[in-house]
Amino acid sequence: MASMTLEKLNDDVREFCEARDWTQFHTPKDLAIGLSTESNELLEHFRFKDEQDQEELLKDSEKRTEIEDELADVLFFLLRFADLNDVDLESALETKLETNRERYPKDEYQASNRKYNE
Amino acid sequence: MASMTLEKLNDDVREFCEARDWTQFHTPKDLAIGLSTESNELLEHFRFKDEQDQEELLKDSEKRTEIEDELADVLFFLLRFADLNDVDLESALETKLETNRERYPKDEYQASNRKYNE
Amino acid sequence: MASMTLEKLNDDVREFCEARDWTQFHTPKDLAIGLSTESNELLEHFRFKDEQDQEELLKDSEKRTEIEDELADVLFFLLRFADLNDVDLESALETKLETNRERYPKDEYQASNRKYNE
Amino acid sequence: MASMTLEKLNDDVREFCEARDWTQFHTPKDLAIGLSTESNELLEHFRFKDEQDQEELLKDSEKRTEIEDELADVLFFLLRFADLNDVDLESALETKLETNRERYPKDEYQASNRKYNE
Repeated sequence: MASMTLEKLNDDVREFCEARDWTQFHTPKDLAIGLSTESNELLEHFRFKDEQDQEELLKDSEKRTEIEDELADVLFFLLRFADLNDVDLESALETKLETNRERYPKDEYQASNRKYNE
Repeated sequence: MASMTLEKLNDDVREFCEARDWTQFHTPKDLAIGLSTESNELLEHFRFKDEQDQEELLKDSEKRTEIEDELADVLFFLLRFADLNDVDLESALETKLETNRERYPKDEYQASNRKYNE
Repeated sequence: MASMTLEKLNDDVREFCEARDWTQFHTPKDLAIGLSTESNELLEHFRFKDEQDQEELLKDSEKRTEIEDELADVLFFLLRFADLNDVDLESALETKLETNRERYPKDEYQASNRKYNE
Repeated sequence: MASMTLEKLNDDVREFCEARDWTQFHTPKDLAIGLSTESNELLEHFRFKDEQDQEELLKDSEKRTEIEDELADVLFFLLRFADLNDVDLESALETKLETNRERYPKDEYQASNRKYNE
């Protein structure tokens, strides 16, 4: 992971969209649809695949490129949603980690896959 | 959007997960499920809502906090997937933008909501 | 909508899967992934589309065929999940409608897009 | 699986929606969002769960009720989409099975989790 800030990535996404006058299509609902549909294009690669299959997929260079492409699409819609709706993603993530540190005390949830509310 | 790098955010997510010994659950399939389910918790807020409803949701401070929380969850799983599978998200996004600059020439797709392959 | 029972449709889906020895891949998790990914292939058709665009899509015979195909895939995974996990879909739906008749009293929710817990 | 036709289930869903004057909210896009969000509420139950965990979930009567409830929601939106957009689900599924019988010849895809286009 390199040293680029989210701000720089965000500027590139914004410039791409504004150059095409696409902001008019970027309602919160449609950007959330973007996140869901691109996440599912990623997920589709792993359907019916066991752990060994998954590892092999990620070693296949053509498949890996497709997978990286889906992840880029997710990041695109995430940055776009945040930018158009004044969400500070960094702050949101730090806040969420703080919440989860309390919800999931280290000792109680050590090597556990339970949800905090289960 | 502040000046934090993805690398710093990624380190915080990794530390949180490793302190709980959760890496064993973080298969590519399960992290992709994480992206899909969290994206859909975001999307659910906008179901049946018209544009004015969507604007009002984002002005309501309680709803806005929930929405920011879902976006943080998406970023969490995105960083986690990338970290565990050696994906450079910045490079992936820059590559995708380059592809899309070619797929969507500015003049041809000005103010257009068509897909390049439609 | 014709007069075929869910039981007959279910038998056809089961025969198709068993003839290929695919039951081994049909874990609850993977069938739920099937529902999510196919729902999102449907959803993708409507991304960035306003109501008039949506109507036009459904009038275009090629697009309509694609949309019907996605709906069939959703039904396939729904029947398969129910069959392999002994879920009576009809009874589940009737139970849910009964719950929702109580959650959403006709007068209070007339022409309302609020959720019962909002 | 009982002997009720899709037509009868569809009539019950339609009556429930029309009694509340909700058809105005049921655009193709919003019904597809319904399918995606409800499929993901189902999927969320299985996140980070291995096969034994999944089996146990389906044996737990409280969890099973939640899972059946999510499946009912998926069927609700599937019937609603089909009804409002004149899609014959039975015919769509039989057509899809016919396509897949050709795409996945029994011998070639016996016990195989490959996609036809991989």
